[in-house]
Amino acid sequence: MIIVIVKGALVADGVKQRMIREAALALARKGLQRASFAEVLEASGAPRGSLYHHFPGGKAELVLEALGAASERVTQALDAVAGKPAPEVAEAFFAIWRKVLAFTDFGGGCAVAAVTVAAETPAQIDAAAAIFRAWRERLAARLAEGGVDAGDAARLAATLVSAAEGAVVLARAERAFEPFDLVAAELVATVKAATRLRRARRSPA
Amino acid sequence: MIIVIVKGALVADGVKQRMIREAALALARKGLQRASFAEVLEASGAPRGSLYHHFPGGKAELVLEALGAASERVTQALDAVAGKPAPEVAEAFFAIWRKVLAFTDFGGGCAVAAVTVAAETPAQIDAAAAIFRAWRERLAARLAEGGVDAGDAARLAATLVSAAEGAVVLARAERAFEPFDLVAAELVATVKAATRLRRARRSPA
Repeated sequence: MIIVIVKGALVADGVKQRMIREAALALARKGLQRASFAEVLEASGAPRGSLYHHFPGGKAELVLEALGAASERVTQALDAVAGKPAPEVAEAFFAIWRKVLAFTDFGGGCAVAAVTVAAETPAQIDAAAAIFRAWRERLAARLAEGGVDAGDAARLAATLVSAAEGAVVLARAERAFEPFDLVAAELVATVKAATRLRRARRSPA
Repeated sequence: MIIVIVKGALVADGVKQRMIREAALALARKGLQRASFAEVLEASGAPRGSLYHHFPGGKAELVLEALGAASERVTQALDAVAGKPAPEVAEAFFAIWRKVLAFTDFGGGCAVAAVTVAAETPAQIDAAAAIFRAWRERLAARLAEGGVDAGDAARLAATLVSAAEGAVVLARAERAFEPFDLVAAELVATVKAATRLRRARRSPA
């Protein structure tokens, strides 16, 4: 009996996690209002009517969970490059977003940005703000560990997050990697220069 | 009679232009789906039912006209700094977007980005792509005139447009100028360095 209950709980968790993942993808592809929860249920293999079973707060709750999942994918990718040189950190950060463009064939972008520009509630804006701040802080920490001066890391992190967000929008509109790749090249070079600058400051010839 | 007709046409044009302006603002504030055309009519003082009089193609036509108006405000601001040094061009470009954040009290951003991330038709995506390309080209021309190497101008222009777009999203979410100002400072410094680099290349000491 216990095993069955545990298994049941695991299966339910699996469905719930799939719903969150599909909701994040729907937000990234279609924006907040066009993200269809009927489609999310279908794509995640969840029975109709199970939205409120898993998310008593309904669509509002599912949106916040989806934002959390989108956030975690980025922070995990940043944790995976802990200890690497700062230019590699910058490359890895742009690679996250290039993969989104490739995976969605230019039909998707950032769920957090999509919710920000069409937010329906203060809770959505607060969640987006917390995520952007978390990304900036995590990226700044990685850049500082990787050889950028602590005093430059916060400014560079804000620039990388903003530039990647904007470059995804341009690439989606133009349906081409060209603007994205120009921006990534420019900012990886900027991070390289900041890393050299710190080395120069520390070991004056 | 002719005078009356001309006056009538002028008044009609005034209403139409106000509707386009209000639609652009609604897109920038609320995104594509939440932009309410009832509110646009009310804000522009247009009588109910006049949407189809001025825009036989309905909401779809008004959205494209609003994107055109949003685009023109940026290209006009870039034309106003023709012949200025490249760092001033960069400052002026960021100033456009800072004004949007201030005017909307962090409640609005870029209408073109808002439409891109929630587009309903290929025509909307095509219009957004044409606008982003036009901004990039215009900005690249201004940067090159202002002292940046032609070979660097396109990459810097893509970076400035992307970074400003993303910084507006971060500032809206965080309801603060802080991320925006960090990004603007970083990229104005980058443009300054690119201008110095060109001078150094041209007059080797």
